[in-house]
Amino acid sequence: MPTTVRVALGQRSYDILIGRGLRRAAGDFLRQSAEASHAIVVTDDNVRPLYGEAFASDLRALGFRCDILSVPAGEPSKSIKHAEALWHDVSRLGCDRRSTIVALGGGVVGDLAGFIAATFMRGLPFVQIPTTLLAQVDSSVGGKVGINLPAAKNTVGAFWQPAGVLIDLDVLTTLPEREYRAGLAEVVKYGVILDAPFFAYLEQHIPEINRRDPAALEQIVARCCELKARVVEQDERELTGVRAVLNYGHTFCHAIETVTGYGQFLHGEAVAIGMACAARLAESMGRVKSDFVLRQRELLEKVGLTTAMPRLDEGQLLDAMRRDKKAERGKIKFILPMRLGCVEVVSDVDPELVRKVL
Amino acid sequence: MPTTVRVALGQRSYDILIGRGLRRAAGDFLRQSAEASHAIVVTDDNVRPLYGEAFASDLRALGFRCDILSVPAGEPSKSIKHAEALWHDVSRLGCDRRSTIVALGGGVVGDLAGFIAATFMRGLPFVQIPTTLLAQVDSSVGGKVGINLPAAKNTVGAFWQPAGVLIDLDVLTTLPEREYRAGLAEVVKYGVILDAPFFAYLEQHIPEINRRDPAALEQIVARCCELKARVVEQDERELTGVRAVLNYGHTFCHAIETVTGYGQFLHGEAVAIGMACAARLAESMGRVKSDFVLRQRELLEKVGLTTAMPRLDEGQLLDAMRRDKKAERGKIKFILPMRLGCVEVVSDVDPELVRKVL
Repeated sequence: MPTTVRVALGQRSYDILIGRGLRRAAGDFLRQSAEASHAIVVTDDNVRPLYGEAFASDLRALGFRCDILSVPAGEPSKSIKHAEALWHDVSRLGCDRRSTIVALGGGVVGDLAGFIAATFMRGLPFVQIPTTLLAQVDSSVGGKVGINLPAAKNTVGAFWQPAGVLIDLDVLTTLPEREYRAGLAEVVKYGVILDAPFFAYLEQHIPEINRRDPAALEQIVARCCELKARVVEQDERELTGVRAVLNYGHTFCHAIETVTGYGQFLHGEAVAIGMACAARLAESMGRVKSDFVLRQRELLEKVGLTTAMPRLDEGQLLDAMRRDKKAERGKIKFILPMRLGCVEVVSDVDPELVRKVL
Repeated sequence: MPTTVRVALGQRSYDILIGRGLRRAAGDFLRQSAEASHAIVVTDDNVRPLYGEAFASDLRALGFRCDILSVPAGEPSKSIKHAEALWHDVSRLGCDRRSTIVALGGGVVGDLAGFIAATFMRGLPFVQIPTTLLAQVDSSVGGKVGINLPAAKNTVGAFWQPAGVLIDLDVLTTLPEREYRAGLAEVVKYGVILDAPFFAYLEQHIPEINRRDPAALEQIVARCCELKARVVEQDERELTGVRAVLNYGHTFCHAIETVTGYGQFLHGEAVAIGMACAARLAESMGRVKSDFVLRQRELLEKVGLTTAMPRLDEGQLLDAMRRDKKAERGKIKFILPMRLGCVEVVSDVDPELVRKVL
């Protein structure tokens, strides 16, 4: 039986369905959640041969009109250039307001396809079918969509909630090792920011996590979705600071991704490094003890993530942080831990302390 | 005393202020409606020397940080190319979520700047200060923002309500004659679709209208804003058909604009032709009598508008109509009159009848 997590947002409420073999239930899910008869599947060149074509055939067999569009795999596809190409493609395909965009892929595909859905004809329904661990536990839920500018990540976008999220855990079996480990960074993040018992659960199940044990994965994905749904419900548009906690590690992470041109690190890899930076920054401010920093680092490393800061230009990193969406009037904000399971938004951090952790 | 029209949309409610000499009150308006301290004024090359620089200076004198950006005047600026340039500019200027975008110009500037506001950092506050009659009575109110694709008008965009609309009637004194007359097309439209007494008022005040009599203009602009506000309140996202009535004449109009490459006709000029087409289509279906068609044509012509359909390729026009946002599953929808002051959405119009009015 699939697990259902409801995201309660009034008229914009939707279900996250988590289970196995769910791809085959996508037709029903599309009909129920988006009342669709024409689906435009947006995917990438890796996922298309693995799942995309079969998925489109299944939908056609169920009587859907179904088109499939793909972009190169990887963060550089979250660009104006690819958004423009997709807008033209969707227009050429005779898409109308009864059409539904289906994002079948990882976070890059979800963010890009979601941005097309948010903006084409001033907004089309869309459904997320995330195929990476990172997208399943984080980016497919909550309605943040967008593309990058060369100067700053996710700078152009919208809050546009999906009509539904369908998480098929089976697809994780074909996920490359590096992508899988990158996703675990966001999993660990949920423990640090919101749920100390979940963090302890992860510490106690490292062998299961590393061999992708199905039962452990189902628990983990469902718990992360549940935690994220509760945060998004409280602060859909990131206005009150509640939702901002999800950006733990992300001020550093986005700066690393921006300075390295979006190609070198996977998002989750940069999140792991960013979390390590945020923990050290908090320690240097006397907010947490060294045992917190150590415990977080050990868990990240045991699930195969690197936490050491790469050698990058300090000035460029600080510039990129100042263009972060959380910055206000030139002051960078950080999400910093108080203790395991609890973080807060902190403005006015001494730039000298930030420089020291870079 | 300025007239205030409230647009009641829950958390997204805002005021339209209509009066004379209001540009000088913009600082207070910005502070009250958007809590702004950093304004990014987006304008065009015509408006910038007339009002833009002085406006920016006024804001700076009041303690605002104020930047000014401009695009070439005219519909071709509602393009991905110009949106991209503005996204880069706004990022370079260190815009954050406390910055406010101010659209100072006509419909093109309002739609483009509003789209930047809707998408930069997933949404910034914006204020409309419309400087054409068309923008004052129509495009600055209601939150429709967007850009054109070569294949179809307003295809990429969002519903993004302004934090406020400031209408200074004084700016109409410098408006070129052609722009002024184009705006009157939308004014006449309100009478036809919603308000027969207002249509009669227009018929009775043609000399005042043609000489831009200040008292008549104030009445006209306020009435149009009032009518539009009530429609938008009932159907903000154009879901129920209530808001669709504002698109009277626009299925033809958008096709004309698309086929002529957005350069030949001003939007209002194409609206006048589109209204004439819609009226003739309704007549050919037996929905209205010839006296309706005649009365509408006479008023449009008396305020200086052409209603004759230009010679354009019929096939191209029909193709463009099929890509209209109102089309569903390939069927074009039209907004057609039942009598003066009342129109309805009609699907399933015989394409042969459409062809005849082209």
